[in-house]
Amino acid sequence: MSHAPSWVPASEFARVREEIADPYDRAAAVSTLARLNTLYMIERAGSGHLGSSFSAADIVTQLYLSELRDPAATDGDVYFSSKGHDVPGLYALLAGLGHLDEGLIHRLRRLDGLPGHPDVGTPHMPFNTGSLGMGISKAKGLVLADRLAGRDRRVYVLTGDGELQEGQNWEALAGAVRHGMRELTVVVDHNKIQSDTWVADVSDLGDLEAKFRSFGWGVVRCDGNDPQALEAAFAKRAAAFPDGPAVLVADTVKGAGCGTFAATSMCEEEWRYRYHSGAPSPEDCAAAYAELWETAGQLLARHGVAPVRPRPAPVADGGTRGARESAYEPYRLTPVYGEALIELAHRDPRVVALDADLVLDTGLIPFREQFPDRFFEFGIAEQDMVSAAGGLAAGGRLPFVHSFSCFLHSRPNEQIYNNATEGRRIVYAGSLAGLVPAAPGHSHQAVRDVSALGAVPGLVVAEPANAAQTRALVRFAAAARESVYLRLSSAPVRAVVDALPLGEEPLTGRGTTVRRGGPLVAVGAGPVVLEHLMGAAQLLAADGVELTVVDLPWLNRVDPDWLAGLARGAQALTVVEHHYTHGGQADTVARALLELGLTAPPAFRGLGLTRLPDCGTEAETLAAHALDAASLAAALRP
Amino acid sequence: MSHAPSWVPASEFARVREEIADPYDRAAAVSTLARLNTLYMIERAGSGHLGSSFSAADIVTQLYLSELRDPAATDGDVYFSSKGHDVPGLYALLAGLGHLDEGLIHRLRRLDGLPGHPDVGTPHMPFNTGSLGMGISKAKGLVLADRLAGRDRRVYVLTGDGELQEGQNWEALAGAVRHGMRELTVVVDHNKIQSDTWVADVSDLGDLEAKFRSFGWGVVRCDGNDPQALEAAFAKRAAAFPDGPAVLVADTVKGAGCGTFAATSMCEEEWRYRYHSGAPSPEDCAAAYAELWETAGQLLARHGVAPVRPRPAPVADGGTRGARESAYEPYRLTPVYGEALIELAHRDPRVVALDADLVLDTGLIPFREQFPDRFFEFGIAEQDMVSAAGGLAAGGRLPFVHSFSCFLHSRPNEQIYNNATEGRRIVYAGSLAGLVPAAPGHSHQAVRDVSALGAVPGLVVAEPANAAQTRALVRFAAAARESVYLRLSSAPVRAVVDALPLGEEPLTGRGTTVRRGGPLVAVGAGPVVLEHLMGAAQLLAADGVELTVVDLPWLNRVDPDWLAGLARGAQALTVVEHHYTHGGQADTVARALLELGLTAPPAFRGLGLTRLPDCGTEAETLAAHALDAASLAAALRP
Repeated sequence: MSHAPSWVPASEFARVREEIADPYDRAAAVSTLARLNTLYMIERAGSGHLGSSFSAADIVTQLYLSELRDPAATDGDVYFSSKGHDVPGLYALLAGLGHLDEGLIHRLRRLDGLPGHPDVGTPHMPFNTGSLGMGISKAKGLVLADRLAGRDRRVYVLTGDGELQEGQNWEALAGAVRHGMRELTVVVDHNKIQSDTWVADVSDLGDLEAKFRSFGWGVVRCDGNDPQALEAAFAKRAAAFPDGPAVLVADTVKGAGCGTFAATSMCEEEWRYRYHSGAPSPEDCAAAYAELWETAGQLLARHGVAPVRPRPAPVADGGTRGARESAYEPYRLTPVYGEALIELAHRDPRVVALDADLVLDTGLIPFREQFPDRFFEFGIAEQDMVSAAGGLAAGGRLPFVHSFSCFLHSRPNEQIYNNATEGRRIVYAGSLAGLVPAAPGHSHQAVRDVSALGAVPGLVVAEPANAAQTRALVRFAAAARESVYLRLSSAPVRAVVDALPLGEEPLTGRGTTVRRGGPLVAVGAGPVVLEHLMGAAQLLAADGVELTVVDLPWLNRVDPDWLAGLARGAQALTVVEHHYTHGGQADTVARALLELGLTAPPAFRGLGLTRLPDCGTEAETLAAHALDAASLAAALRP
Repeated sequence: MSHAPSWVPASEFARVREEIADPYDRAAAVSTLARLNTLYMIERAGSGHLGSSFSAADIVTQLYLSELRDPAATDGDVYFSSKGHDVPGLYALLAGLGHLDEGLIHRLRRLDGLPGHPDVGTPHMPFNTGSLGMGISKAKGLVLADRLAGRDRRVYVLTGDGELQEGQNWEALAGAVRHGMRELTVVVDHNKIQSDTWVADVSDLGDLEAKFRSFGWGVVRCDGNDPQALEAAFAKRAAAFPDGPAVLVADTVKGAGCGTFAATSMCEEEWRYRYHSGAPSPEDCAAAYAELWETAGQLLARHGVAPVRPRPAPVADGGTRGARESAYEPYRLTPVYGEALIELAHRDPRVVALDADLVLDTGLIPFREQFPDRFFEFGIAEQDMVSAAGGLAAGGRLPFVHSFSCFLHSRPNEQIYNNATEGRRIVYAGSLAGLVPAAPGHSHQAVRDVSALGAVPGLVVAEPANAAQTRALVRFAAAARESVYLRLSSAPVRAVVDALPLGEEPLTGRGTTVRRGGPLVAVGAGPVVLEHLMGAAQLLAADGVELTVVDLPWLNRVDPDWLAGLARGAQALTVVEHHYTHGGQADTVARALLELGLTAPPAFRGLGLTRLPDCGTEAETLAAHALDAASLAAALRP
């Protein structure tokens, strides 16, 4: 099955709203058109959170069509999503309602387009979200500010149900009661599925209504995919709890509104929901478009409204990478890591693996299958996971702790330090580290992790570049005296990096010269930095400049003797990193280099991020931060 | 009233246990003797958490005398306190029962003695606690490890009630249910008072039993200061919930067992409980000793047991500072900070202050009194507080956010970053920063904060040394374009530092030469570093070496031009910091110095912490880390 990509313009949204008199069918039609555009955006972007966007579509439509007062005005009611995954759906609706330039829907997850998670740089996004569990607290702060300013408006926050596993949600509830926050309504998009699978199988929420009630909140519950039920529920919230905060538990279906994506279509043996993130297959997209057009057509026909006329997609402006490198299939490090961990677990019975609802993205599915008794799923509860790892270590195990790096280095930052103060041996493995993939946006781009963890006593931070080095560092981590934080890129490893000879047993603080050149030396770690340094070397070689490229996988350690050797032959030494220019590998190397006390040290520079990471494709983001081969060559040219 | 300090030896505990047949009076007698020794330890140390130790004394006694199976054995039942404040009481009991060398009770909060919060270096302390909210998670990890190892034992965790405001507690509960953790019992020392005041006034817990039940836990409740009730409650826990985790909500009185300290003795208008931390006045101590001796005497007499014979205290071995500097009264920066904030708030209506249950220690009591509508108390909920500050900033306010630095830089680390990604202007003020006071132990010594926050974009980290500089930096923080993290020492500011001319309007990245000497240059910030650098300079001057001392209050920024000027005259440049040697000011200065590209840069060194901070008095801890004047002089001597 195939289809020509097309989208629904705002003018058609407007016509449908005007021509359908029945409020519930009108809402259903609008949310169906928003779903069509959501699918269009995600297919075009090649990734995005479809399941959440669809489950929340009717809630958000109800809010914007009926519940919110002046949502587009500066002082109007405020809505935002705490989980943020559902933002493609929100963009689609806002564009359809004319609140957002509709040209932007062609640029989801692209540079200067619509970020993969909400960002305040986009109109009508009051907060940056996507880091889970912060929304209720932020809303409370806004309500307090509104009261101080004498602004009379209401604040609505959408949370996920899996998101409620984060402790901050529960931390936030009491204060809203204490302050009698009648302005605040939390809507739980209770679609029963978190990133990987069913919430009940990961960390069951139990009696959600009883929980909120026990924290003093008013509770309403309804079918969250039914406009009429939603309308009644919002009315009930206002009537029943006029003096304090309330939650609307909205029972939804992940992927609702379309059989292809609806979780209700999952067969018995399917444990993993396939449309949480990424893009559906072309076949699934085609089937879903057909379904959604049929739904829209029926709704419009019922009210004698002329069919919606879609517009063809504008031509894509590149941004994705060019032709595939022939005969070589790029791979990612996380599956390699997962295999290495299994191999290790076979040899070392102490090894256990802990996960925080990212079993797919951290490469742990095979481990879980092979060692079900040594695998522990904590749900979206990183602090709990890390402290429990401390308990497991106290009980004689060697825990490998997993999440996306962006969350692992920061949410349980104090817990990691506390484990270190007990001298526990623990391996933390953070995937999705570094600047790219950049499509999810800065909440998911870990470019501050080396700084945030670098000073933890007895914790070595290391980043492998290819499969061989990943295996070597897993062995190292298992045998080391110190704890280890493995910084794992989730970007493709391309041929030039795969071929680098990095499989030797690693020695802490020592690097490997992977390209012997002249006295111009560039140091870096990880697949993307090394790929682009090798690319820069090629560009420079064409001009007769031979760059020496050094892999230094250690980000908070450097061996002074090794560095002295490297510095001896160097005229200029540049550290390139996917990290803010402060607090990362460049600082570590600079400090050590200065302390060598050389009479004429090489000219030193660090190249990294000097501002928030952009959202975009790999190529355009690297170029935007001057970290692609061409920019590096220009910067390194003597 | 006065008294000669004395303590109860373990032999007397043993005799009392043997001679009192009635189990409840025996428990009451043992906990009374433990309270006597607790008071002795805290009075001798000059600080310690008395209120919690007393409220929990009967619970812990019941656990050790009756409930725990083989608690001293490696594979026996495990008990630990998650809040950790009550550890003086636990030490007293363990020493009384012969599980801990009784000689140690003379060395509470001293080097190589008993740390102010639990540390795994002390026998029978399975975990480091005092960082709140981690205990249940750690216990779960231990249970999982026990199951893997086939160890059949039970784990008991004590939490505070205020501590339950931390989100991690609620994050931890579901997993224990999922794993059917019958081995796990949580006891809540429900004494109704947190650090500053009543839990209900800070962030009411509401129906605590309903909360735990809604998370799927078994719940038992009893009078936690009554041995008989405790015995029945533990029996009920085992009988009623044999297949899963359960909580015992133990209703206690803060300071129980002695009218002097009991919260029930507080008069109507007293809002603050005075015995949470610190040491009671000599008068209160004398009164409490008399009461406790009377209680013990009555219990023993009732059973015809001979009175307990206390032993006189050994002579103290110094450790505290010598004679007071005449005519000068050292002060602390936090009250100065608090006054500066008030002054600012009068001028700038945007200013609001947020606190996490440390209103006394962060200098906020006067602010709260003067601006009750602009003061927000979040309880022990740092993540909630920081995200809510983001919401307040979004609503047009300028939030000043407060906690101890040790918690503020790490628990809400991701939330601080998230606020930064929104470009919010927020001032974070962390008190108790740096190595000293060292008595509370490493959970409370913030020596990693510069690293953990240094790379947050748009966040300047600055540390004032004296009152004038504190006022200047508060003004700076209010007017700066960036957000600011104020690192506030809670150590005394002595005359030599008070006199330093640091009140000028600060320029980011530029320091002040506070002692003009020769080409030997030392750079530092904060009252303690500068005091000891000035002291080192005096020692060196006696040998004819003139040290140049520079105050650089900026910890993650340095102005290259200013640094170039400083480096020109320098032969050697040493940065001294109360921070791990990695990731702090030394790294910042080193990187900038190297990037100046000088042909012969000054010899560079950084002096800071190379291992976990010790617990002890100010003088002995500084000496132990070679950061006192004498050690610095020795290290700096050319």
